[in-house]
Amino acid sequence: MALQAAGRQSLVDTVVEDLRSQLTAGEWPVGDRIPTEHALAEQLQVGRNTVREAIRVLVHAGMLRSRQGEGTFVVSTADPGEIMRGIQRAGIRDVLELRIALEAEAARLAALRREPADLERMQAALDAQAELADAEGQPAADSLELYADHDIAFHRAVVEAAHNTALTATYGWFSSSVREALVRALDDHEMPKILHDDHRAVLDAIAMGDPEGAERATRVLLERPKRAVEALLAAR
Amino acid sequence: MALQAAGRQSLVDTVVEDLRSQLTAGEWPVGDRIPTEHALAEQLQVGRNTVREAIRVLVHAGMLRSRQGEGTFVVSTADPGEIMRGIQRAGIRDVLELRIALEAEAARLAALRREPADLERMQAALDAQAELADAEGQPAADSLELYADHDIAFHRAVVEAAHNTALTATYGWFSSSVREALVRALDDHEMPKILHDDHRAVLDAIAMGDPEGAERATRVLLERPKRAVEALLAAR
Repeated sequence: MALQAAGRQSLVDTVVEDLRSQLTAGEWPVGDRIPTEHALAEQLQVGRNTVREAIRVLVHAGMLRSRQGEGTFVVSTADPGEIMRGIQRAGIRDVLELRIALEAEAARLAALRREPADLERMQAALDAQAELADAEGQPAADSLELYADHDIAFHRAVVEAAHNTALTATYGWFSSSVREALVRALDDHEMPKILHDDHRAVLDAIAMGDPEGAERATRVLLERPKRAVEALLAAR
Repeated sequence: MALQAAGRQSLVDTVVEDLRSQLTAGEWPVGDRIPTEHALAEQLQVGRNTVREAIRVLVHAGMLRSRQGEGTFVVSTADPGEIMRGIQRAGIRDVLELRIALEAEAARLAALRREPADLERMQAALDAQAELADAEGQPAADSLELYADHDIAFHRAVVEAAHNTALTATYGWFSSSVREALVRALDDHEMPKILHDDHRAVLDAIAMGDPEGAERATRVLLERPKRAVEALLAAR
Protein backbone atom coordinates (compact mmCIF):
# COMPACT_ATOMS: atom_id res chain seq x y z
CA MET A 1 0.00 0.00 0.00
CA ALA A 2 2.78 2.41 0.97
CA LEU A 3 4.80 1.29 -2.06
CA GLN A 4 1.79 1.70 -4.31
CA ALA A 5 1.22 5.23 -3.02
CA ALA A 6 4.88 6.07 -3.51
CA GLY A 7 4.72 4.73 -7.08
CA ARG A 8 1.63 6.78 -7.89
CA GLN A 9 3.25 9.84 -6.36
CA SER A 10 6.27 9.72 -8.59
CA LEU A 11 3.95 9.23 -11.58
CA VAL A 12 2.17 12.47 -10.62
CA ASP A 13 5.58 14.15 -10.37
CA THR A 14 6.43 12.87 -13.84
CA VAL A 15 3.18 14.29 -15.24
CA VAL A 16 3.80 17.60 -13.40
CA GLU A 17 7.25 17.81 -15.01
CA ASP A 18 5.81 16.90 -18.39
CA LEU A 19 3.06 19.55 -18.29
CA ARG A 20 5.48 22.10 -16.88
CA SER A 21 7.95 21.50 -19.73
CA GLN A 22 5.16 21.99 -22.25
CA LEU A 23 4.12 25.21 -20.47
CA THR A 24 7.62 26.71 -20.19
CA ALA A 25 8.31 25.75 -23.83
CA GLY A 26 5.29 27.87 -24.80
CA GLU A 27 3.23 24.91 -26.09
CA TRP A 28 0.13 26.69 -24.72
CA PRO A 29 0.39 30.51 -24.44
CA VAL A 30 -0.89 32.48 -21.45
CA GLY A 31 -4.67 32.79 -21.59
CA ASP A 32 -5.14 29.59 -23.61
CA ARG A 33 -7.16 26.60 -22.45
CA ILE A 34 -5.09 23.44 -22.11
CA PRO A 35 -6.44 20.09 -23.40
CA THR A 36 -9.05 18.26 -21.27
CA GLU A 37 -8.08 15.80 -18.53
CA HIS A 38 -9.29 13.05 -20.82
CA ALA A 39 -7.11 14.17 -23.75
CA LEU A 40 -4.05 14.65 -21.54
CA ALA A 41 -4.56 11.22 -19.94
CA GLU A 42 -4.59 9.65 -23.41
CA GLN A 43 -1.63 11.69 -24.61
CA LEU A 44 0.51 10.87 -21.56
CA GLN A 45 -0.81 7.30 -21.15
CA VAL A 46 -1.80 7.76 -17.50
CA GLY A 47 -5.05 7.76 -15.54
CA ARG A 48 -7.31 10.80 -15.29
CA ASN A 49 -6.81 11.00 -11.51
CA THR A 50 -3.08 11.35 -12.05
CA VAL A 51 -3.67 14.16 -14.56
CA ARG A 52 -6.09 15.84 -12.14
CA GLU A 53 -3.54 15.74 -9.30
CA ALA A 54 -0.79 17.12 -11.54
CA ILE A 55 -3.06 19.96 -12.65
CA ARG A 56 -3.82 20.77 -9.02
CA VAL A 57 -0.09 21.05 -8.31
CA LEU A 58 0.28 23.55 -11.17
CA VAL A 59 -2.82 25.50 -10.08
CA HIS A 60 -1.31 25.90 -6.59
CA ALA A 61 1.98 26.96 -8.20
CA GLY A 62 0.18 29.78 -10.06
CA MET A 63 0.82 28.41 -13.57
CA LEU A 64 -2.75 27.23 -14.30
CA ARG A 65 -6.24 28.28 -13.29
CA SER A 66 -9.35 26.07 -13.36
CA ARG A 67 -12.70 27.64 -14.16
CA GLN A 68 -15.70 25.52 -13.14
CA GLY A 69 -17.32 24.04 -16.26
CA GLU A 70 -14.99 25.90 -18.63
CA GLY A 71 -11.70 24.02 -18.32
CA THR A 72 -8.15 24.84 -17.24
CA PHE A 73 -6.34 27.95 -18.47
CA VAL A 74 -2.71 29.05 -18.58
CA VAL A 75 -1.90 31.86 -16.11
CA SER A 76 1.90 31.89 -16.45
CA THR A 77 4.46 29.95 -18.45
CA ALA A 78 7.17 30.64 -15.85
CA ASP A 79 7.64 28.15 -13.03
CA PRO A 80 7.60 29.94 -9.65
CA GLY A 81 9.25 27.01 -7.85
CA GLU A 82 12.17 27.08 -10.27
CA ILE A 83 12.44 30.86 -10.00
CA MET A 84 12.38 30.75 -6.20
CA ARG A 85 15.19 28.19 -6.33
CA GLY A 86 17.05 30.57 -8.69
CA ILE A 87 16.75 33.41 -6.16
CA GLN A 88 17.86 31.07 -3.36
CA ARG A 89 20.95 30.21 -5.39
CA ALA A 90 21.64 33.87 -6.25
CA GLY A 91 24.43 35.52 -4.33
CA ILE A 92 23.89 38.32 -1.81
CA ARG A 93 25.08 40.90 -4.35
CA ASP A 94 22.40 39.81 -6.84
CA VAL A 95 19.67 39.96 -4.22
CA LEU A 96 20.82 43.43 -3.10
CA GLU A 97 20.65 44.63 -6.72
CA LEU A 98 17.12 43.25 -7.04
CA ARG A 99 16.20 45.07 -3.82
CA ILE A 100 17.72 48.31 -5.15
CA ALA A 101 15.67 47.97 -8.36
CA LEU A 102 12.37 47.43 -6.54
CA GLU A 103 12.92 49.66 -3.51
CA ALA A 104 14.44 52.70 -5.26
CA GLU A 105 11.44 52.88 -7.64
CA ALA A 106 8.98 52.11 -4.83
CA ALA A 107 10.44 54.92 -2.67
CA ARG A 108 10.09 57.34 -5.60
CA LEU A 109 6.41 56.38 -6.05
CA ALA A 110 5.84 56.33 -2.26
CA ALA A 111 6.87 59.99 -2.09
CA LEU A 112 3.98 60.73 -4.49
CA ARG A 113 1.34 58.43 -3.00
CA ARG A 114 2.05 57.81 0.70
CA GLU A 115 -0.81 58.13 3.14
CA PRO A 116 -0.55 58.98 6.85
CA ALA A 117 -0.87 55.29 7.80
CA ASP A 118 2.14 54.42 5.60
CA LEU A 119 4.35 56.95 7.38
CA GLU A 120 3.14 55.71 10.76
CA ARG A 121 4.15 52.14 9.93
CA MET A 122 7.62 53.22 8.78
CA GLN A 123 8.05 55.31 11.94
CA ALA A 124 6.86 52.44 14.17
CA ALA A 125 9.43 50.08 12.62
CA LEU A 126 12.26 52.59 13.16
CA ASP A 127 11.13 53.23 16.76
CA ALA A 128 11.08 49.49 17.46
CA GLN A 129 14.60 49.16 16.03
CA ALA A 130 15.84 52.08 18.13
CA GLU A 131 14.53 50.39 21.29
CA LEU A 132 16.67 47.33 20.58
CA ALA A 133 19.81 49.39 19.94
CA ASP A 134 22.68 50.01 22.35
CA ALA A 135 24.53 53.32 22.83
CA GLU A 136 26.23 52.87 19.44
CA GLY A 137 22.90 52.28 17.75
CA GLN A 138 23.51 48.56 17.20
CA PRO A 139 21.34 45.60 18.27
CA ALA A 140 22.44 43.26 21.09
CA ALA A 141 23.52 39.76 20.04
CA ASP A 142 20.35 38.18 21.44
CA SER A 143 17.97 40.48 19.55
CA LEU A 144 19.33 40.13 15.99
CA GLU A 145 16.28 38.22 14.72
CA LEU A 146 13.81 40.72 16.16
CA TYR A 147 15.93 43.60 14.82
CA ALA A 148 15.91 41.97 11.37
CA ASP A 149 12.11 41.65 11.51
CA HIS A 150 11.75 45.39 12.22
CA ASP A 151 14.17 46.14 9.37
CA ILE A 152 12.12 44.02 6.96
CA ALA A 153 8.93 45.70 8.25
CA PHE A 154 10.39 49.14 7.46
CA HIS A 155 11.37 48.19 3.91
CA ARG A 156 8.01 46.50 3.28
CA ALA A 157 6.20 49.63 4.52
CA VAL A 158 8.18 51.72 1.98
CA VAL A 159 7.24 49.37 -0.85
CA GLU A 160 3.59 49.23 0.24
CA ALA A 161 3.46 53.05 0.36
CA ALA A 162 3.87 53.00 -3.44
CA HIS A 163 0.32 51.55 -3.53
CA ASN A 164 1.19 49.29 -6.44
CA THR A 165 -0.20 45.72 -6.26
CA ALA A 166 2.41 44.28 -8.63
CA LEU A 167 5.38 45.83 -6.78
CA THR A 168 4.06 44.79 -3.36
CA ALA A 169 3.37 41.23 -4.50
CA THR A 170 6.80 40.82 -6.11
CA TYR A 171 8.65 42.35 -3.16
CA GLY A 172 6.71 40.31 -0.58
CA TRP A 173 7.41 37.16 -2.54
CA PHE A 174 11.17 37.21 -2.25
CA SER A 175 11.67 39.38 0.85
CA SER A 176 10.53 36.59 3.19
CA SER A 177 13.39 34.49 1.86
CA VAL A 178 16.09 37.10 2.58
CA ARG A 179 15.50 37.18 6.38
CA GLU A 180 18.03 34.42 7.01
CA ALA A 181 20.72 36.26 5.02
CA LEU A 182 19.89 39.51 6.83
CA VAL A 183 20.31 37.93 10.29
CA ARG A 184 23.66 36.46 9.15
CA ALA A 185 24.78 39.88 7.85
CA LEU A 186 23.81 41.55 11.17
CA ASP A 187 26.07 39.07 12.94
CA ASP A 188 28.96 39.52 10.46
CA HIS A 189 31.55 42.06 11.58
CA GLU A 190 32.84 42.44 8.01
CA MET A 191 29.44 43.77 6.88
CA PRO A 192 28.55 47.44 7.44
CA LYS A 193 26.22 48.26 10.33
CA ILE A 194 22.60 49.17 9.70
CA LEU A 195 22.46 52.94 10.14
CA HIS A 196 19.42 54.56 11.71
CA ASP A 197 20.15 57.88 9.93
CA ASP A 198 20.15 56.20 6.50
CA HIS A 199 16.66 54.83 7.17
CA ARG A 200 15.52 58.14 8.64
CA ALA A 201 16.56 59.90 5.40
CA VAL A 202 14.32 57.60 3.34
CA LEU A 203 11.34 58.21 5.60
CA ASP A 204 11.93 61.99 5.63
CA ALA A 205 12.10 62.25 1.82
CA ILE A 206 8.93 60.17 1.44
CA ALA A 207 7.16 62.25 4.09
CA MET A 208 8.20 65.50 2.33
CA GLY A 209 6.90 64.20 -0.99
CA ASP A 210 10.33 64.30 -2.64
CA PRO A 211 10.55 61.44 -5.21
CA GLU A 212 14.16 62.06 -6.32
CA GLY A 213 15.33 62.44 -2.72
CA ALA A 214 13.53 59.24 -1.69
CA GLU A 215 15.11 57.29 -4.55
CA ARG A 216 18.55 58.70 -3.78
CA ALA A 217 18.29 57.94 -0.04
CA THR A 218 17.22 54.35 -0.81
CA ARG A 219 20.24 53.88 -3.07
CA VAL A 220 22.56 55.24 -0.35
CA LEU A 221 20.98 52.81 2.15
CA LEU A 222 21.32 49.70 -0.02
CA GLU A 223 24.50 50.43 -1.94
CA ARG A 224 26.52 50.47 1.28
CA PRO A 225 26.08 46.70 1.90
CA LYS A 226 26.35 46.03 -1.84
CA ARG A 227 29.78 47.69 -1.99
CA ALA A 228 30.86 45.78 1.12
CA VAL A 229 29.87 42.46 -0.48
CA GLU A 230 31.70 43.36 -3.70
CA ALA A 231 34.83 44.26 -1.71
CA LEU A 232 34.67 40.95 0.20
CA LEU A 233 34.20 39.01 -3.07
CA ALA A 234 37.13 40.85 -4.69
CA ALA A 235 39.39 40.13 -1.68
CA ARG A 236 38.84 36.37 -1.89
CA MET B 1 -14.22 5.49 -7.17
CA ALA B 2 -14.41 8.85 -8.94
CA LEU B 3 -16.25 10.33 -5.96
CA GLN B 4 -13.72 8.84 -3.59
CA ALA B 5 -10.88 10.36 -5.58
CA ALA B 6 -12.62 13.75 -5.67
CA GLY B 7 -13.17 13.58 -1.90
CA ARG B 8 -9.54 12.77 -1.25
CA GLN B 9 -8.46 15.55 -3.59
CA SER B 10 -10.36 18.20 -1.70
CA LEU B 11 -8.91 16.85 1.54
CA VAL B 12 -5.42 17.39 0.09
CA ASP B 13 -6.48 20.92 -0.88
CA THR B 14 -7.64 21.51 2.70
CA VAL B 15 -4.29 20.32 4.07
CA VAL B 16 -2.44 22.47 1.50
CA GLU B 17 -4.43 25.52 2.64
CA ASP B 18 -3.80 24.64 6.28
CA LEU B 19 -0.03 24.28 5.86
CA ARG B 20 0.12 27.37 3.68
CA SER B 21 -1.70 29.45 6.32
CA GLN B 22 0.76 28.27 8.94
CA LEU B 23 3.66 29.14 6.60
CA THR B 24 2.42 32.62 5.64
CA ALA B 25 1.61 33.32 9.31
CA GLY B 26 5.27 32.68 10.10
CA GLU B 27 4.60 29.58 12.22
CA TRP B 28 7.84 28.09 10.81
CA PRO B 29 10.45 30.65 9.67
CA VAL B 30 12.47 30.30 6.46
CA GLY B 31 15.23 27.71 6.90
CA ASP B 32 13.38 25.80 9.64
CA ARG B 33 12.41 22.15 9.39
CA ILE B 34 8.65 21.58 9.54
CA PRO B 35 7.20 18.73 11.68
CA THR B 36 7.39 15.18 10.29
CA GLU B 37 4.65 13.71 8.07
CA HIS B 38 3.67 11.57 11.03
CA ALA B 39 3.33 14.54 13.39
CA LEU B 40 1.41 16.62 10.83
CA ALA B 41 -0.95 13.70 10.09
CA GLU B 42 -1.72 13.46 13.82
CA GLN B 43 -2.10 17.21 14.22
CA LEU B 44 -4.44 17.58 11.22
CA GLN B 45 -6.21 14.23 11.75
CA VAL B 46 -5.56 13.00 8.22
CA GLY B 47 -3.60 10.16 6.64
CA ARG B 48 0.13 10.36 5.97
CA ASN B 49 -0.42 10.01 2.20
CA THR B 50 -2.61 13.12 2.27
CA VAL B 51 0.11 15.03 4.14
CA ARG B 52 2.72 13.76 1.67
CA GLU B 53 0.68 14.95 -1.32
CA ALA B 54 0.09 18.36 0.26
CA ILE B 55 3.81 18.73 0.94
CA ARG B 56 4.56 17.87 -2.68
CA VAL B 57 2.21 20.63 -3.83
CA LEU B 58 4.08 23.14 -1.64
CA VAL B 59 7.48 21.86 -2.83
CA HIS B 60 6.42 22.43 -6.43
CA ALA B 61 5.16 25.91 -5.45
CA GLY B 62 8.63 26.78 -4.10
CA MET B 63 7.55 27.19 -0.45
CA LEU B 64 9.12 23.95 0.88
CA ARG B 65 12.14 21.81 0.03
CA SER B 66 12.58 18.14 0.92
CA ARG B 67 16.06 16.85 1.69
CA GLN B 68 16.39 13.08 1.49
CA GLY B 69 16.69 11.63 5.00
CA GLU B 70 16.73 15.06 6.65
CA GLY B 71 13.14 16.23 6.44
CA THR B 72 11.26 19.11 4.84
CA PHE B 73 12.48 22.71 5.14
CA VAL B 74 10.87 26.13 4.63
CA VAL B 75 12.16 27.94 1.52
CA SER B 76 9.69 30.84 1.44
CA THR B 77 6.75 31.97 3.56
CA ALA B 78 5.20 33.82 0.61
CA ASP B 79 2.76 31.96 -1.62
CA PRO B 80 3.79 32.29 -5.29
CA GLY B 81 0.35 31.25 -6.55
CA GLU B 82 -1.31 34.01 -4.54
CA ILE B 83 1.29 36.54 -5.68
CA MET B 84 0.87 35.55 -9.34
CA ARG B 85 -2.88 36.08 -8.93
CA GLY B 86 -2.10 39.49 -7.39
CA ILE B 87 -0.04 40.46 -10.44
CA GLN B 88 -2.79 39.19 -12.74
CA ARG B 89 -5.26 41.41 -10.90
CA ALA B 90 -2.91 44.41 -10.97
CA GLY B 91 -3.71 47.08 -13.52
CA ILE B 92 -1.55 47.83 -16.56
CA ARG B 93 -0.14 50.92 -14.84
CA ASP B 94 1.07 48.83 -11.88
CA VAL B 95 2.72 46.29 -14.17
CA LEU B 96 4.43 49.06 -16.18
CA GLU B 97 5.81 50.53 -12.94
CA LEU B 98 7.15 47.11 -11.93
CA ARG B 99 8.77 46.82 -15.36
CA ILE B 100 10.32 50.30 -15.00
CA ALA B 101 11.77 49.30 -11.60
CA LEU B 102 13.34 46.08 -12.88
CA GLU B 103 14.32 47.18 -16.40
CA ALA B 104 15.77 50.61 -15.57
CA GLU B 105 18.13 49.07 -13.00
CA ALA B 106 18.88 46.09 -15.27
CA ALA B 107 19.77 48.44 -18.17
CA ARG B 108 22.12 50.37 -15.86
CA LEU B 109 23.88 47.14 -14.82
CA ALA B 110 23.81 45.81 -18.39
CA ALA B 111 25.86 48.83 -19.53
CA LEU B 112 28.57 47.71 -17.07
CA ARG B 113 28.43 43.95 -17.69
CA ARG B 114 27.11 43.22 -21.19
CA GLU B 115 28.98 40.73 -23.34
CA PRO B 116 29.04 40.57 -27.15
CA ALA B 117 26.41 37.81 -27.18
CA ASP B 118 24.00 40.02 -25.17
CA LEU B 119 24.25 42.84 -27.71
CA GLU B 120 23.77 40.37 -30.56
CA ARG B 121 20.51 39.09 -29.03
CA MET B 122 19.15 42.62 -28.56
CA GLN B 123 20.11 43.51 -32.13
CA ALA B 124 18.51 40.32 -33.50
CA ALA B 125 15.22 41.10 -31.71
CA LEU B 126 15.16 44.65 -33.13
CA ASP B 127 16.00 43.38 -36.63
CA ALA B 128 13.17 40.84 -36.44
CA GLN B 129 10.75 43.59 -35.36
CA ALA B 130 11.89 45.83 -38.20
CA GLU B 131 11.17 43.07 -40.72
CA LEU B 132 7.54 42.92 -39.56
CA ALA B 133 7.08 46.70 -39.77
CA ASP B 134 5.39 48.66 -42.55
CA ALA B 135 6.60 52.00 -44.00
CA GLU B 136 5.49 53.78 -40.78
CA GLY B 137 7.44 51.31 -38.64
CA GLN B 138 4.31 49.57 -37.32
CA PRO B 139 3.43 45.85 -37.45
CA ALA B 140 0.68 44.54 -39.73
CA ALA B 141 -2.53 43.41 -38.01
CA ASP B 142 -1.77 39.75 -38.66
CA SER B 143 1.70 39.83 -37.11
CA LEU B 144 0.93 41.45 -33.73
CA GLU B 145 1.66 38.29 -31.74
CA LEU B 146 5.00 37.68 -33.44
CA TYR B 147 5.89 41.37 -33.04
CA ALA B 148 5.04 41.14 -29.32
CA ASP B 149 7.30 38.08 -28.98
CA HIS B 150 10.24 39.99 -30.48
CA ASP B 151 9.51 42.92 -28.18
CA ILE B 152 9.54 40.62 -25.12
CA ALA B 153 12.76 39.01 -26.42
CA PHE B 154 14.44 42.43 -26.61
CA HIS B 155 13.47 43.39 -23.07
CA ARG B 156 14.48 39.98 -21.70
CA ALA B 157 17.86 40.30 -23.43
CA VAL B 158 18.40 43.66 -21.68
CA VAL B 159 17.57 42.16 -18.28
CA GLU B 160 19.76 39.10 -18.93
CA ALA B 161 22.67 41.38 -19.92
CA ALA B 162 22.77 42.52 -16.27
CA HIS B 163 24.04 39.01 -15.47
CA ASN B 164 22.09 38.89 -12.22
CA THR B 165 20.34 35.60 -11.41
CA ALA B 166 17.80 37.19 -9.07
CA LEU B 167 16.80 39.94 -11.53
CA THR B 168 16.53 37.51 -14.46
CA ALA B 169 14.44 35.04 -12.45
CA THR B 170 12.06 37.70 -11.16
CA TYR B 171 11.65 39.36 -14.56
CA GLY B 172 11.13 36.05 -16.37
CA TRP B 173 8.54 35.05 -13.81
CA PHE B 174 6.05 37.80 -14.51
CA SER B 175 7.03 38.81 -18.06
CA SER B 176 5.44 35.70 -19.57
CA SER B 177 2.13 36.82 -18.10
CA VAL B 178 2.22 40.28 -19.70
CA ARG B 179 2.27 39.00 -23.30
CA GLU B 180 -1.52 39.03 -23.58
CA ALA B 181 -1.71 42.64 -22.37
CA LEU B 182 1.07 43.63 -24.80
CA VAL B 183 -0.76 42.14 -27.81
CA ARG B 184 -3.94 43.97 -26.74
CA ALA B 185 -1.99 47.26 -26.40
CA LEU B 186 -0.45 46.80 -29.88
CA ASP B 187 -3.98 46.53 -31.26
CA ASP B 188 -5.29 49.53 -29.29
CA HIS B 189 -5.23 52.81 -31.24
CA GLU B 190 -5.42 54.82 -28.01
CA MET B 191 -2.08 53.37 -26.86
CA PRO B 192 1.19 54.89 -28.16
CA LYS B 193 3.03 52.99 -30.89
CA ILE B 194 6.18 51.03 -30.09
CA LEU B 195 9.03 53.18 -31.38
CA HIS B 196 12.06 51.55 -32.94
CA ASP B 197 14.24 54.60 -32.08
CA ASP B 198 13.36 54.33 -28.37
CA HIS B 199 14.56 50.71 -28.34
CA ARG B 200 17.62 51.60 -30.39
CA ALA B 201 18.59 54.23 -27.79
CA VAL B 202 18.57 51.60 -25.01
CA LEU B 203 20.76 49.25 -27.04
CA ASP B 204 23.18 52.06 -28.01
CA ALA B 205 23.67 53.23 -24.40
CA ILE B 206 24.25 49.65 -23.20
CA ALA B 207 26.69 49.02 -26.07
CA MET B 208 28.59 52.23 -25.24
CA GLY B 209 28.85 51.23 -21.57
CA ASP B 210 26.83 54.24 -20.37
CA PRO B 211 24.83 53.20 -17.24
CA GLU B 212 23.04 56.53 -16.70
CA GLY B 213 22.16 56.80 -20.39
CA ALA B 214 20.85 53.22 -20.45
CA GLU B 215 18.66 53.83 -17.40
CA ARG B 216 17.35 57.11 -18.85
CA ALA B 217 16.58 55.56 -22.25
CA THR B 218 14.69 52.69 -20.55
CA ARG B 219 12.59 55.18 -18.59
CA VAL B 220 11.78 57.12 -21.79
CA LEU B 221 10.76 53.85 -23.47
CA LEU B 222 8.44 52.65 -20.68
CA GLU B 223 7.09 55.92 -19.34
CA ARG B 224 5.44 56.70 -22.68
CA PRO B 225 2.87 53.86 -22.37
CA LYS B 226 2.57 54.51 -18.61
CA ARG B 227 1.56 58.13 -19.21
CA ALA B 228 -0.91 57.02 -21.91
CA VAL B 229 -2.55 54.57 -19.48
CA GLU B 230 -2.75 57.25 -16.76
CA ALA B 231 -4.34 59.69 -19.23
CA LEU B 232 -6.91 57.07 -20.29
CA LEU B 233 -7.71 56.27 -16.65
CA ALA B 234 -8.09 59.98 -15.82
CA ALA B 235 -10.43 60.53 -18.81
CA ARG B 236 -12.84 57.81 -17.69
